[in-house]
Amino acid sequence: MNLEIFGVNGIGEVVEGDDVASLILDALPGPLQDFDVVVVTHKIVSKAEGALQAAATDEERRRIVESESTSVVRRRGDLTISITRHGFICANAGVDRSNVVPGYVVLLPRDPDASAHRIRRRLEQATGRSVGVVITDTFGRPWRRGLIDVAIGVSGLPSLVDYRGTTDTFGSTLEVTEVAAIDEIAAAADLVMGKATGTPVAVVRGLRLTGDGRATDLVRPPSEDLFR
Amino acid sequence: MNLEIFGVNGIGEVVEGDDVASLILDALPGPLQDFDVVVVTHKIVSKAEGALQAAATDEERRRIVESESTSVVRRRGDLTISITRHGFICANAGVDRSNVVPGYVVLLPRDPDASAHRIRRRLEQATGRSVGVVITDTFGRPWRRGLIDVAIGVSGLPSLVDYRGTTDTFGSTLEVTEVAAIDEIAAAADLVMGKATGTPVAVVRGLRLTGDGRATDLVRPPSEDLFR
Repeated sequence: MNLEIFGVNGIGEVVEGDDVASLILDALPGPLQDFDVVVVTHKIVSKAEGALQAAATDEERRRIVESESTSVVRRRGDLTISITRHGFICANAGVDRSNVVPGYVVLLPRDPDASAHRIRRRLEQATGRSVGVVITDTFGRPWRRGLIDVAIGVSGLPSLVDYRGTTDTFGSTLEVTEVAAIDEIAAAADLVMGKATGTPVAVVRGLRLTGDGRATDLVRPPSEDLFR
Repeated sequence: MNLEIFGVNGIGEVVEGDDVASLILDALPGPLQDFDVVVVTHKIVSKAEGALQAAATDEERRRIVESESTSVVRRRGDLTISITRHGFICANAGVDRSNVVPGYVVLLPRDPDASAHRIRRRLEQATGRSVGVVITDTFGRPWRRGLIDVAIGVSGLPSLVDYRGTTDTFGSTLEVTEVAAIDEIAAAADLVMGKATGTPVAVVRGLRLTGDGRATDLVRPPSEDLFR
């Protein structure tokens, strides 16, 4: 299997009310194909959905982080690791001021799975192709330095790919191997997106995945989680 | 920037003493190019280095996990989350019995950065190209269900790509954005490798990264880590 991953440039600044799917279609360098996965940084989705708030001071930003959190997992200095209403655990509840008009912060989309679904439906209606959509954010991790992109919304794909019951090269049954394929797709797409440049969308071509997973499926239930 | 990712098939079962670089060169579908990143699942590296131990019973496996751990972070039932001698925090200290002769377990390579360096030197000597090498394992994560591949060894690449000091689309300076690019490369490569099939190597083509990072650079120092 060969994968191709390319960035979609030239989308420009997104404002409330914009139709993200139309912006993507206008900017794509060529036609979409069946099974293409369109990976979208949440920031343009949030902006299109109006998920911005004025926050000129650190105190205002802190208040917004609190109101976007259902509970705080750890706090150190300016850094708050908290649980968002979606169940994601991340820094500052995903509230971020990079790539946004100075004096404002951008929040996570209210329901990123629903946002992904809407974008997918529009892309499919416009092109007649069956595609997947992944909405990403950039998360830190316990234990490992550096950030990586993960999936916070998905449509048309499985959230977890389950290899349990398949056999390895020795014919032994694999016991527990659920791969977070949409997180691997998010990470792969980030390799062409960068953090400072204007490439908020990428296409991953060559996978043959379909499903109806939700990114919130990846939230580990507190009862299974050893690290809350 | 366009990326291409393809699997390298037909390497077959690797045994102690095998030269992993030669096996890769023989199996590559075409010539390597400058900047190619060759991603190798640690399992074939460990096998070539003889990092296998007999372990017929759960008790023997447990003893090996203990001896491969410098300390235990959490334990629940059969699952041990521990710190390896390299500093990685993962399930069962990376000791695994899938894709290995029944009755044996495979350990992590003793020094995966050194292993990556040796493989890279051999590939570069044989081809005259400048390449990167990433050695991967499959890790679980706190808070998020599903496994993803991460880098446990690297050569010829930066471990972290630092966007601090660059400006975003509004001209604001990005404050803290160090991307774990080698982890994103590992995750991307896993999309073409699969868990049950015989594709232990992939090539990521199209990046323009060079550096001399080490995968152990990604180990977050305990003093900075809120989740030990």
